[in-house]
Amino acid sequence: MADIRVQSLKQPVKVVQYLYRRLHELGVRSVHGLPGDYNLVALDYLPECGLKWVGSVNELNAAYAADGYARVKGIAALITTFGVGELSAINGVAGAYSEMIPVVHIVGCPSTISQRNGMLLHHTLGNGNFEIFSNMNTEISCAVAKLNRPSEIADQIDHALRECWIQSRPVYITLPTDMVNVEIEGARLETPIDLSEPENDPEKEDYVVDVVLKYLRAAKHPVILVDACAIRHRVLDEVLALSEKTGLPTFVTPMGKSGINETLPNYGGVYAGVGSHPPGVQDIVESSDLVLSIGALKSDFNTAGFSYRTSQLNSIELHSDHCVARYSHYPGVRMRGVLRKLTNTIKAEELSAQPSPSVNNEVKKNLDNSPTITQAWFWPRVGEFLHKGDIVVTETGTANFGIWDTKFPPDVTALSQVLWGSIGWSVGSCQGAALAAKDAGVDRRTILFVGDGSFQLTVQEVSTMLRHGLKPIIFVICNDGFTIERFIHGMEAEYNDIVAWDFKGVVDVFGGRGKSRTFTIKTKDELNNLLTDEEFNAAKTLQFVELYMPKEDAPRALVMTAEASAQNNAKTE
Amino acid sequence: MADIRVQSLKQPVKVVQYLYRRLHELGVRSVHGLPGDYNLVALDYLPECGLKWVGSVNELNAAYAADGYARVKGIAALITTFGVGELSAINGVAGAYSEMIPVVHIVGCPSTISQRNGMLLHHTLGNGNFEIFSNMNTEISCAVAKLNRPSEIADQIDHALRECWIQSRPVYITLPTDMVNVEIEGARLETPIDLSEPENDPEKEDYVVDVVLKYLRAAKHPVILVDACAIRHRVLDEVLALSEKTGLPTFVTPMGKSGINETLPNYGGVYAGVGSHPPGVQDIVESSDLVLSIGALKSDFNTAGFSYRTSQLNSIELHSDHCVARYSHYPGVRMRGVLRKLTNTIKAEELSAQPSPSVNNEVKKNLDNSPTITQAWFWPRVGEFLHKGDIVVTETGTANFGIWDTKFPPDVTALSQVLWGSIGWSVGSCQGAALAAKDAGVDRRTILFVGDGSFQLTVQEVSTMLRHGLKPIIFVICNDGFTIERFIHGMEAEYNDIVAWDFKGVVDVFGGRGKSRTFTIKTKDELNNLLTDEEFNAAKTLQFVELYMPKEDAPRALVMTAEASAQNNAKTE
Repeated sequence: MADIRVQSLKQPVKVVQYLYRRLHELGVRSVHGLPGDYNLVALDYLPECGLKWVGSVNELNAAYAADGYARVKGIAALITTFGVGELSAINGVAGAYSEMIPVVHIVGCPSTISQRNGMLLHHTLGNGNFEIFSNMNTEISCAVAKLNRPSEIADQIDHALRECWIQSRPVYITLPTDMVNVEIEGARLETPIDLSEPENDPEKEDYVVDVVLKYLRAAKHPVILVDACAIRHRVLDEVLALSEKTGLPTFVTPMGKSGINETLPNYGGVYAGVGSHPPGVQDIVESSDLVLSIGALKSDFNTAGFSYRTSQLNSIELHSDHCVARYSHYPGVRMRGVLRKLTNTIKAEELSAQPSPSVNNEVKKNLDNSPTITQAWFWPRVGEFLHKGDIVVTETGTANFGIWDTKFPPDVTALSQVLWGSIGWSVGSCQGAALAAKDAGVDRRTILFVGDGSFQLTVQEVSTMLRHGLKPIIFVICNDGFTIERFIHGMEAEYNDIVAWDFKGVVDVFGGRGKSRTFTIKTKDELNNLLTDEEFNAAKTLQFVELYMPKEDAPRALVMTAEASAQNNAKTE
Repeated sequence: MADIRVQSLKQPVKVVQYLYRRLHELGVRSVHGLPGDYNLVALDYLPECGLKWVGSVNELNAAYAADGYARVKGIAALITTFGVGELSAINGVAGAYSEMIPVVHIVGCPSTISQRNGMLLHHTLGNGNFEIFSNMNTEISCAVAKLNRPSEIADQIDHALRECWIQSRPVYITLPTDMVNVEIEGARLETPIDLSEPENDPEKEDYVVDVVLKYLRAAKHPVILVDACAIRHRVLDEVLALSEKTGLPTFVTPMGKSGINETLPNYGGVYAGVGSHPPGVQDIVESSDLVLSIGALKSDFNTAGFSYRTSQLNSIELHSDHCVARYSHYPGVRMRGVLRKLTNTIKAEELSAQPSPSVNNEVKKNLDNSPTITQAWFWPRVGEFLHKGDIVVTETGTANFGIWDTKFPPDVTALSQVLWGSIGWSVGSCQGAALAAKDAGVDRRTILFVGDGSFQLTVQEVSTMLRHGLKPIIFVICNDGFTIERFIHGMEAEYNDIVAWDFKGVVDVFGGRGKSRTFTIKTKDELNNLLTDEEFNAAKTLQFVELYMPKEDAPRALVMTAEASAQNNAKTE
């Protein structure tokens, strides 16, 4: 039976090879994960398919890293083992789902025979049910593919990978040990997976474009607002073209940060309700008679605690799978086509483009007389340090809010997890991002800002960075614990304290001795010297900065948002 | 409305106080977990209820630690935050479910109002669905209690905690921010939760006891076999009484290790099919005409790869909720009552008690001429080092298999995760176990054996040990990576390699400088000196041992089991 099938294959290829060659085709070059006996044989095939094994230190870090890799390289892959491995990773995968990051999660699992027989195997709950973990994954995956029947596997893989890309969300693939080596038809590998988005129905698209044009032309103070889904659904080229052609004041939300070139003359800063920056932004956006919102995601932390005061009557929202103009909904009309047609059709002279606020890194304005490094001074100072093309990773907490006040040079990619907000994510993500840049063969610096509390959760990812010779610049903000929690509740509470570590020492013990540089920075002068140091800027080795800031200092946006969160949590009716 | 309810309460108590006082009643003294804004207010109430906050370094470690705490103290509690926290912990909780460990998992979650309104909050998937994570938990919890309605909360809590204890499995409790402070009736706290097991129907119990007695009296070579569920369902006193009264040869399985006093004259060693120890055990058990099996859990790693060769016709199985004699099933008959009645009724002189194999720590027999520390020599040597009452934690991998050849002194508690087998578990578990002993006010040493690969996953738990002044002895077996995986597949594969760390240095950077002792041990002589050193034995501070062993050496039981696993994984029909 097996022989007959194999003989009829034109270009027999093993299941695992098929899967890996598809991953490679999509741009994956490194695969995150840990070995486990249900995935070991599959791991043998990585090198021959042009994939590098990362050898992560634990599965949650691996998932965070895959998330970061995908944000830079477009897509990522993660291999874990059944039960123990996949569940350790699940919070990282859920984060990728929440934040819309395409991660392919492959789980090596017991053979179809063992599953059918309900064997009492290690890494099971001991109840013979092999479906429980895949069931958990269905709600955090946009497709699930259980590779149990050879005749269906190629279709399942192609479908899952396409969904992963198009929906920009994780997919979950189980690879039983007895399927790894089974041969399937490889001829179809000659045809790449179709990753193209469905086109809009032209008549519908025209209709929406006409509506948008009409409102835009009639508006006296129209503005563009770039949000998360513009980045996730890859319409940044279209957004840039529209912003440049129209010259309309263009703002970003916190999750939309780095979604537009911030050196454009019409770039106006960050809109986040009461947390907006610079001064004036809130007024301009909220008094605008037409907000063209692209890829909006109005979560609490993306709106400084739901403090938006824009009116739906003055809003046009473009989304990945629908558009809304005032109260009219256009389901199934995707923003990409609308944006392109808008840009092609519109003329700048038809529009009333008001001047944008001037956005600068306000270092001097936030300077005080003390040597202490304050949050208010630090984040603009970071803006002056950044280079074109840098990758900037900020952790949930002070970093995620502080970065609102940092103006980026061109081509920066900003990574943050504003919606999911899992502390510790940024350390894994930084590794993945740096590796992605390396895999892409581009010389981009990866710069991480993480608090001391969050850093402790995923500290061993530094080891993986060293294993692969990555050269991120890591700023650990040492301010004695969970600052964001302190501002929400428990400013002096013991539960917001952490153990004092020798943070710099971490690099040495994880294998960095002799191949890294570490710094302790406690004053503005020390920081200025470091940030202007040529060798530091060149980032030719892993660099780790212990950055001391006061415990009870926080970025202004964090203070506002934390207050709103505390109020919402306490609400009783 | 709220006032009316409050006024009618005889002893008003806040929901969170009610929950904590019940936990305290059950024996919990320390609560593992991390702060998150949905649980912060709840954390305020821990101290007044006599509960200590552990302040874990990440949620997976916290869950592992809670598991270890429960194994020593009887039950444990874990507090995480919605979404990100609970999912980070889920693998640890699933492990507790698989291994039958009573852990109370409390998740601080958004207010019932936010949930009802489907708000787009941080730590959500952004889809307004607040049920997804609790749904994931239903399959790994023996009870789920969502504390949403004040009038039901006390019942929900009492029910969940009772189930946790009786079923010896995790329960999942959600505590919305707006329920924390709501007052409920506290008068019922005067009546402790009923933790008593349901009694057997006396007629049924008598019937089963008669059957068992009949077979026991007729048997020529009866033996007792103690397995995992005897420990989990707390019948060790009953087992000991039976073994002592009958003098029957008594064996343990790997998961039953420490389930019986190994210094009893009739203790015969470890039965695990081909992996049994000492020589002779396999023959005796498999040729026995009556195996009285108590709490059996015949998983692959507990049976050296399903290598049991006992016959159901010669077996009586006693379980927590049923018994089986040969092929006759007795559902609903619990082993505790049967064991007690058996012991009361039986007389040693009625039975044919054959001599047991002599069990010793075979150090000399396994000595070779080299200074190298071999697995064969090491584990018996450990047996000579152990003291009465030690807590011994072994990681999945070489340690879990090596310990089969270690004979314990009396009152040792052995912790291992043979069924779930999540690497890294032991480091968290060690912290929890040591803390549990401290909380119980008993002076027991906690000794951890963990491989270098596994240690890397959860390394920062050392920081928590130091935070609480715990004094475990930690042996990190440095043998260059994942040895158990190497023996299953990929002896020289890169994916089984790890980064070389300065393992000892870890203690210093996590806050251990000046309050810990570290050692590097590379030879048998060095180890002998250490293990006989008085100060080392006294364990008055955290002690950390880098223990170098060859990369391609493994305990004999691991080699056999790994081979069986590899074969099972490769099976194609």
